[in-house]
Amino acid sequence: MLPEPTVERLSRYRRILRDLHGSGKTSVFSHELAEMAHSNAAQVRRDVMLIGHSGSPAKGYEVTALRTAIGDVLDDPALSRSVVIGLGNLGQAVVGYFGDHHSRFTISAAFDVDPLKIGRENFGVPTFGMEKLEELISAQNIRIAILAIPKPVAQEIVNRLCAAGITGIVNFVQIPLRVPPGVFVELVDIAATWEKVAYFSRRRQG
Amino acid sequence: MLPEPTVERLSRYRRILRDLHGSGKTSVFSHELAEMAHSNAAQVRRDVMLIGHSGSPAKGYEVTALRTAIGDVLDDPALSRSVVIGLGNLGQAVVGYFGDHHSRFTISAAFDVDPLKIGRENFGVPTFGMEKLEELISAQNIRIAILAIPKPVAQEIVNRLCAAGITGIVNFVQIPLRVPPGVFVELVDIAATWEKVAYFSRRRQG
Repeated sequence: MLPEPTVERLSRYRRILRDLHGSGKTSVFSHELAEMAHSNAAQVRRDVMLIGHSGSPAKGYEVTALRTAIGDVLDDPALSRSVVIGLGNLGQAVVGYFGDHHSRFTISAAFDVDPLKIGRENFGVPTFGMEKLEELISAQNIRIAILAIPKPVAQEIVNRLCAAGITGIVNFVQIPLRVPPGVFVELVDIAATWEKVAYFSRRRQG
Repeated sequence: MLPEPTVERLSRYRRILRDLHGSGKTSVFSHELAEMAHSNAAQVRRDVMLIGHSGSPAKGYEVTALRTAIGDVLDDPALSRSVVIGLGNLGQAVVGYFGDHHSRFTISAAFDVDPLKIGRENFGVPTFGMEKLEELISAQNIRIAILAIPKPVAQEIVNRLCAAGITGIVNFVQIPLRVPPGVFVELVDIAATWEKVAYFSRRRQG
């Protein structure tokens, strides 16, 4: 298994390679890729080596070949579908975001408690009441859930998700969640990002 | 200056300490804090030591004292206000999110090109046309911007933001941005988070 920071960087490299491909570039040097990814060339070469790929000293990496190599390591079609739990501002943003921009990822369904949102499509995503959670996850063999619900109900819903077969959670709820072994949770903490930007913004001025 | 991962962890500890305080807990051991922060006790003790604070072997850290110590390092009131650029789904979610939950951070203004959004409050945040960007940032001495605009216009807007005095950017736009020295940019990449969750979710099952 690759270390977490490596997976994060590979994911970032691939997005850069996609843009390079879109702009007609067919090869890229490690130092170019490093600069665009805010990394360094030695790190890029180490990461690419770890997935068993290599470039040529004269031409660098082939853009298409490296994209494919990263995809072979990162992608599993079964894990490119998810459900969104909670269609408040944040849940709606997530649904709208992936609906608009990221065709490789799809949101199969959304769940909410609001009768006005249930039983219709929101941003093209069919939306159900919370009582349908287990049934739909099981029927569609969904394994990834995006959690955007209020704190007080989060742990209870997570218990239901894990029992229903969810093994990966993108967590927008700012509390630590207890999950069974084998379930991976990643917190997306926008307030923490802001704090970090503020800290380094201040220091760089001083 | 503290390293980036340390700042991220301190930010996370503080959020946990706030919840602990809310639930009436007055002291916490490093191993307890570590478990809630998905870290380890040695790391917690090292991080706390780096900001010049310490606990007692018998009682651990005092919750209130450690919160204050972290705040002294991380907080600058001038950097707890920001502007949001772009009120699409994501920008609206950010505005709604900080409006609802995070009183320490405030969004002073939002900017958009949509006449329907300009000249009124959205989620309680006054919203202006893009032509007011420089004037408002300067008048209110704003230094942090949250960027949630379409890719093709991102670099041009970033140039204007930096010229107007912005020194920190929370970037939701999935492209590398060029900024002058002294400006700190942090990318929030939800697709990358999803990829990471999918990768580790699959591996843990296998």
